[in-house]
Amino acid sequence: MTKTVRFHELGGPEVMVLEDLEVGEPGPGELRIRVEAIGVNRAEALFRSGTYIEEVRSFPAKLGTEASGVVEAVGPGVTGFAPGQAVSTVPAFSQNDYGVYAERAIVPAAAVLHRPDGVDAVSGAAVWMPYLTAYGALVEVGGMRAGDTVALTAASSSVGLAGIHTVARAGATPIAITRTAAKKEQLLKEGAAEVIVSDEEDVPSRLLDLTGGRGVEHVFDAVAGPGVTGLARAVAPGGTLFLYGALSGQPTPYPGFDLGMPALNLRTYTVLETTRDPERLRRAAAYVASGLRAGAFRPVVDRVFPLEEIVRAHHHMASGTQIGKIVVTAG
Amino acid sequence: MTKTVRFHELGGPEVMVLEDLEVGEPGPGELRIRVEAIGVNRAEALFRSGTYIEEVRSFPAKLGTEASGVVEAVGPGVTGFAPGQAVSTVPAFSQNDYGVYAERAIVPAAAVLHRPDGVDAVSGAAVWMPYLTAYGALVEVGGMRAGDTVALTAASSSVGLAGIHTVARAGATPIAITRTAAKKEQLLKEGAAEVIVSDEEDVPSRLLDLTGGRGVEHVFDAVAGPGVTGLARAVAPGGTLFLYGALSGQPTPYPGFDLGMPALNLRTYTVLETTRDPERLRRAAAYVASGLRAGAFRPVVDRVFPLEEIVRAHHHMASGTQIGKIVVTAG
Repeated sequence: MTKTVRFHELGGPEVMVLEDLEVGEPGPGELRIRVEAIGVNRAEALFRSGTYIEEVRSFPAKLGTEASGVVEAVGPGVTGFAPGQAVSTVPAFSQNDYGVYAERAIVPAAAVLHRPDGVDAVSGAAVWMPYLTAYGALVEVGGMRAGDTVALTAASSSVGLAGIHTVARAGATPIAITRTAAKKEQLLKEGAAEVIVSDEEDVPSRLLDLTGGRGVEHVFDAVAGPGVTGLARAVAPGGTLFLYGALSGQPTPYPGFDLGMPALNLRTYTVLETTRDPERLRRAAAYVASGLRAGAFRPVVDRVFPLEEIVRAHHHMASGTQIGKIVVTAG
Repeated sequence: MTKTVRFHELGGPEVMVLEDLEVGEPGPGELRIRVEAIGVNRAEALFRSGTYIEEVRSFPAKLGTEASGVVEAVGPGVTGFAPGQAVSTVPAFSQNDYGVYAERAIVPAAAVLHRPDGVDAVSGAAVWMPYLTAYGALVEVGGMRAGDTVALTAASSSVGLAGIHTVARAGATPIAITRTAAKKEQLLKEGAAEVIVSDEEDVPSRLLDLTGGRGVEHVFDAVAGPGVTGLARAVAPGGTLFLYGALSGQPTPYPGFDLGMPALNLRTYTVLETTRDPERLRRAAAYVASGLRAGAFRPVVDRVFPLEEIVRAHHHMASGTQIGKIVVTAG
């Protein structure tokens, strides 16, 4: 029997309950892992509350896509993995099919990466989602180059911080956007060239000022909603505004016509584009591992909760006070 | 004295009046041309009515960006042009600065192309705007390749028809979208592989059917408004929906979140991106001239009006019954 988080109805953090379940044997193409640490992501809170891009197909439902641990059993037809190896999962599957909020879990082998040397279990649950998201959008899709300027909203989130590191590593200039001054110092410490406090400053004007009126080549936006019109105003001709989240919860207009039809690209992006394509994932994982070796990438862990406190961990995520990743340890 | 169209207030076609004006000498970087034919574009109707992306700066105002004619006088510092040469202007300037609805006009030399052999005055006023618009979006920005499928709305407009020819020339498959069945035969004759009649058929379902569920790699849309959500649903992963016009007159939503965050590019585009960049314009003009020589490109002229009937020409454009370009002859 293994402790597994499930929920029997949509709702707030309290719908999550810890249950003893039989985990079973991995089927073809699957692995069973003993989970050591779990990365907590907004996608789980959205799935749990029924507001994710994918609906819950049936109850009771599982949760979680990002975990680090050790291979326990290898299913038929799986190559490249053996029991005892340290691994991490990446978000490449539906939470309707698999969930890693548990002490042990079955996962598809296509969603499992070997954990690089020197990456412990907690870091191994905090590194992939953020860096794969940032790399996939900015480097793989966006073609970010040295000399570009990149604006990042929700900059103190784990993906925002990974974005800052990724931009800096490319020889480009990261400009962090954060709501209040509370996290400004930390963002500068993490490598932001400039920090714009959106409650106190006019974001588009500041972005244009900071680029000598040119605008930024990329915006990496987790907020969406009506604010995209202002952000779009500060995009350089031919630049791209990536929308990878919708934290605002408000409808998003298409700003191109209001702005006089600039050469503006609006691009939705999720990490699934990177993790579900084996060749993209291979390249992205190599990029992240190399960044970790070089010290350019260093996952920022905000707080660690035990699995028994998963409800508290989700409440903490909802508070918006964290800087970096919330991790839950199991076992 | 030269007959010139001006308007003294914003409004419908009737605000345009023909006036005798002194045209003067070209300044540095300018040419004076004797106008033989004028291409009529929606941009002029929008500018005239005060709904263009650029406002009228002062009255009386001039109109028109696309004309063919003969060089009469060459301003200081201009190279590559001599009196008597057959030329066409392309939309690369503001109607606040220059207007070609006239018998003679001063224009910036940077917006003037030599007319290829075999292109008469009427064709020379009908060829550039459509093909430069389609080429710039689909080839230069979109990187259209053989085997792509491309959906085109407002397909019987001059730009839509040039788009069909451009898609076919690339070895890609053009799917024309038109409101009623009236223009279907003509669109097939012009090279559309399929025609979808949007008043009678569900456009996204048909596009998905026609691509075996894959979706189209590019949409070339002049309509915008709420319809973009349906069009976006039929875009293949990583594909691009170009928005180059807003014929619907309605607000355009950003469809990415409603559609579950597909790998969707939304891209505003105007021909100015192509015509205001000398290297892009050089490449685009060569592409169009080569297409004309090969017979792959053939501008479709709907009707020709004399300059004295410019008001009727604009009424005809507003009727939406035309197929291809409306041209006005001068002199």
